[in-house]
This record gives sequence, structure tokens and C-alpha cells, in this order.
Amino acid sequence: MEVRNRIVTTRKAIDEFPVESDFEVKCEDFVVLVKSGSDDIIVKNLYVSIDPYQINRMKSFSSTHKTSDFATPIIPSQPIDALGVGEVLASGNPEFKEGDIVIGITHWAEYSVVKAHTNLLRKLETLGFPLTHHLGILGFSGLTAYAGLFEVAKIKEGETVFVSAASGSVGSLVGQFAKLHGCYVVGCAGSDQKVTLLKEKFGFDNAFNYKQEKDLTATLEKYFPDGIDVYFDNVGGEMLEAAIANMKPFGRVAVCGVISEYTNSKKAVPNMIDLVYKRIKVEGFLAGDFLDMFPNFVSKVSQYLHSGKIEPLEDISVGVENIPSAFIGLFKGDNIGKKIVKFAE
Amino acid sequence: MEVRNRIVTTRKAIDEFPVESDFEVKCEDFVVLVKSGSDDIIVKNLYVSIDPYQINRMKSFSSTHKTSDFATPIIPSQPIDALGVGEVLASGNPEFKEGDIVIGITHWAEYSVVKAHTNLLRKLETLGFPLTHHLGILGFSGLTAYAGLFEVAKIKEGETVFVSAASGSVGSLVGQFAKLHGCYVVGCAGSDQKVTLLKEKFGFDNAFNYKQEKDLTATLEKYFPDGIDVYFDNVGGEMLEAAIANMKPFGRVAVCGVISEYTNSKKAVPNMIDLVYKRIKVEGFLAGDFLDMFPNFVSKVSQYLHSGKIEPLEDISVGVENIPSAFIGLFKGDNIGKKIVKFAE
Repeated sequence: MEVRNRIVTTRKAIDEFPVESDFEVKCEDFVVLVKSGSDDIIVKNLYVSIDPYQINRMKSFSSTHKTSDFATPIIPSQPIDALGVGEVLASGNPEFKEGDIVIGITHWAEYSVVKAHTNLLRKLETLGFPLTHHLGILGFSGLTAYAGLFEVAKIKEGETVFVSAASGSVGSLVGQFAKLHGCYVVGCAGSDQKVTLLKEKFGFDNAFNYKQEKDLTATLEKYFPDGIDVYFDNVGGEMLEAAIANMKPFGRVAVCGVISEYTNSKKAVPNMIDLVYKRIKVEGFLAGDFLDMFPNFVSKVSQYLHSGKIEPLEDISVGVENIPSAFIGLFKGDNIGKKIVKFAE
Repeated sequence: MEVRNRIVTTRKAIDEFPVESDFEVKCEDFVVLVKSGSDDIIVKNLYVSIDPYQINRMKSFSSTHKTSDFATPIIPSQPIDALGVGEVLASGNPEFKEGDIVIGITHWAEYSVVKAHTNLLRKLETLGFPLTHHLGILGFSGLTAYAGLFEVAKIKEGETVFVSAASGSVGSLVGQFAKLHGCYVVGCAGSDQKVTLLKEKFGFDNAFNYKQEKDLTATLEKYFPDGIDVYFDNVGGEMLEAAIANMKPFGRVAVCGVISEYTNSKKAVPNMIDLVYKRIKVEGFLAGDFLDMFPNFVSKVSQYLHSGKIEPLEDISVGVENIPSAFIGLFKGDNIGKKIVKFAE
């Protein structure tokens, strides 16, 4: 069988704020046939995860390229790998067969040739949940929120927690997990609609629209008159500075990403004197380091979902041609919750 | 008995680089007599510790003033409290008697009235070491180096360690403790003389004069081709940025002070993207949080001193009138090792 495969690629390295013309949707012939002797798996992609960190892989040079396997460069005009859910169309690998629903590293493309061992491919046990949940709340977004709060920041009942990008894929779960753990939680987001959602749907104790605030340090002081125990940082920049200024002694900052710094030259200048006197810990982390927690995490969050204690927040666009705008939208704050592209209705 | 007591005070808040005219040496009559019913202790100061952190207490406003007991403001024209060693001249407290040698919070002054409970005063067991050692290697400088390496950064044998201000009171001990623990150690300092000292006397694997380097990130890459496991930060600023750029994955930065930022507006802008991808931990700490380790620390370091495994490095000026220049010299890098002022020969 031969199909037309639409593939999103970059035209060039992207060092500025990304725009649509940085991307190209190429169309190629694609033969759905495993070569004899190969253990390749051919996957029809159903959903793909759209994640901010990919922008760092698109840059022409970043010191992170050289230091981390998690930031291997994306080569212009080449397929872009990304976490996705798909259906096996053909398989040379005995562990996978036609019709299997799988999750792993596929591509921003309608069809992918995947190697089981290099693409972290596994059969997806849906556990009765929608496929998209496994890219968000039951996937890396959820694990990032969970591990960041409990393993990195080691939150304790009764502590005060601040989370930025609180209506994003990770932030909305950070707030909910922290509330379930008995914490006081305030989030910030970039629109009044998002703020309402955080307060009314997700049970945040409070939330504010950072775009309406002139002095973020004063704003945080208002919401945390006694200071912040844990700041879950998704954004970096000025918000990180304001949080450091408002941390309590022995406060912890868990940093899973700094989205404002990916596309903006305004970098955080945290007050290091505060950091010393207040004995603050700032720690970067990646969910990939906590895969040993994954089974327990899935079990726990599945229970939360079944009992309605936690709500997923997903933002799904349809069509491979909409991947570039979905991706660019992350940096504009267009998405509300986990951004996913569905390949077809 | 009445004596003349020379006391160093500030004339005003100090927000710029400190200069001699910011200070005044006042001379007051001082009666060596404990008031009836008082449990005051009158101390003739012998040595006083000269520490960079005091500059933060002299500023007109700092957010640290409000958040930390360790940064209570120094009031212009009032005595400046500081760690010192002295001799008891008179005591209303039964735990102390005339002639006792004591250590605790005294003042930048020849004589002090001290309260046992608020000034952390204790009788000093010299353990056969010079009194000055108890303000440096066997005091807070030593505990800072020790706790920072073993409790905060949790160094492991074979790791690579970088320390800034390496010929300072803390840095010279960090390097020596790390070498004794089987680490590869490189230090930086501000003169060729200091660099020679680090390499030839203190056994650092290497050392460099940062004032001779144009690109600190490239310099650190040269000394740490495989990256830094632990950076013991005494300085902040550009050196912190360069260290973050050169940290290994899971590297730890223990920050006990950021002397370059105390008097210089050039603040560190650490690369937060590196911090995330390399899962770096940056942690501020104060030796005062590790007082429970103090007995074990003193016991261990005393053995090292007796067996010649470690060398103290002290820089002693004489005379109360030289306290301002000794203090200002800290920020110019004049001192080599722990800065102490001795009140009289």
C-alpha cells in the first residue's frame, strides 16, 4: 500500500520567536511495507504531543545541545520526532502487530517508521481512558507535575505553593496535585479566562493574570503574605525573580522549563543574596529521570481520575497542517492545557 | 576601672563600594564594672572576625533584611556586632569569670558588654590551637566549607570540584577538604601569588587567576573538559554563569555567598535552560544551620590539623583602627585567607 504522508519540518534553525514560515508541511510518498529482514514498525499516527521544549532543539546552537541527550538538534527539512500515539499498520517486530495501539517517539507526520528500541515504543494500555490522556495527564505532563512536586520540591501538607503557566499541561496538574496534598495553591496565567478556570474548575485557592500586574514581586507578596514554600517554575524570566524574592526560608524552586526564556531575551536575574540568606534551593529536573515512578504514578492518577478528584485539561487541534500554529501558539499562551494535535477526525 | 574604648561604626548606610570615609573610629569612656544585679559580661576583645556578609547589613535596604535573622541591619553610629574572641574582665554571670577566654558575638570595638544568652557566648576550649583558628578553620569558615561540601553539595570521591575565591577563608578549606575526599579540585583567585599558593601549598590540582581570563566559560571548559560536578560558589556574578555553563548533568552548586554581587551591580544571569536540561541544583546555605555538626567537625578538623593534612590560612591585621581597611580589602581581594583583626600585639 502506498499513501501520501504529510510531514512537518523546519526550513531553518529557529533562533527568534517562531513563525509559520519557519515551518513547511511536506508531502511525500510513503510505502506501507516493512522491508524484508527489518524489525521496523510502521505507524499511522493518531495524536502527537506539542511541547515547548522542542524550540530548544530547533535553535542553531545552544550549549544544551552539547550537554544533554534530551536536546538533540532538530535538523531543518528532516522529520521532527515527538511523543505520539498511533496504530501499527505493519510490523517486522514480533512484539508488535497490525492494529496495535502504541505510544512512543513518532513524528510530526501522518506516518512514521519506528524502531521499537530506539523510539521507546510500547503497546498502550488505555486503562479505559481516552488516548490523549496518555500524552498528558497520564504521560510526561503528569509525571513532570508529580515528580516535580513530590520528588524534587518534596512538598509537605500545609505548605504554600505557587505555580506559573498554571493553566498549561503541567501547571494545571501541579495545582491539582498540590491541593489534593493539602497545600495552599496560587497559580498565574495569561488571561482572565484561564484565571477563572483555575479558580472555579481546578480548585486553586487563588489565581491571577500576570499580564494585568505591574509589579510581580508585590503581586506575589499579596497572595503569599507569609511567603512561598514551593515555586513550581514553568516560565523563568521575571516571574522567577519575583518568586525568589517571595520565597520563605528553606523554600524550594522546582524548574521543569522556562518557556518565557526560550523565545525572549529577558533572562531571569535571581537575587542570589536572597538565595543564600533564605537558603533557597533551585533545581532543574526532567520527568525522564523519574521513569521508575511511572507505574505508581499511573496507578495513583488513574484512581484520581476515576473518582473525579482530578480533571485533565486538553487542547486539541486537528490536522497535521495545524502543527506549526499549535506549536507557535504555546509561546503566545494560546493553549489551555495540554496541546495535542489529532491527525484526523 | 575606666578605660578608653575605640569602636568602629558606620557613618551612614553603605550602598556603594565601601570606602574608609564610610566608617568612623569613635573613642568613648568605658567603665569596666558590671552593674549590680546584671548578668552582663565585660569582655576585652582580642580578635575579631572580618566577614564580607556584614556589607549586606550595612545597606540602606535589602529584601534580605526583612527575611532573615542573619541580616539584621547595622545602624549607623551604633556598635557593629561580629564574631570575636576575648578575655572576660568582669562578669555578673556565674558561668563566666574574670580571665576566661570566650568566643561569641562581640563588636568591632576594643571592649564589649555581652549577654551570654543573646550573644552565643561560650568559653573557648582552645584544644591547643591558636585563638585565631577558632574564628577561621575551626569556626564558621571551616564549618561553611565542610557543611557546604558534605551536606549541601554531597561531594563524592572522584568528583570534580570548582571553588571560587579559593584563597579566601572558606575557599582555601573547600579545596583542601575536597582533595582529602579524593576529588579533582580547581580554584580561581585574583592574583598570581594566590594561584601559586593554591597549587604549591594547598595541593589544588589546578588554579587560575580570573583577572587574566577573557572568557570564563572557555577557561572553565579548559580545566574541566568533562564538566564540573560541584561548584562551591563564594562570588556569584559572571563566575556563576560560567560554572553553570560547565556543570555536568546532576551537578550541584552550593552557594555560601556572592561577594562580587555585594558591591557590584553585575548580577549573575544563570542559564536556566542549562539548569533544566542538566538537572542542576543551586542551593544557598548558611553555616549556622549546621551547628549540630559542629562537635564532629571540630574533632575531625583538629585531627587533620594535628597530622598536618590541612593548613589554615589567616590574614591578620593589628589595631582597631585598621578594621575599616581590613573590611574594605575583602571586596578588593586584598586578603589571603581568613581576615582577622587583632586588637593589640
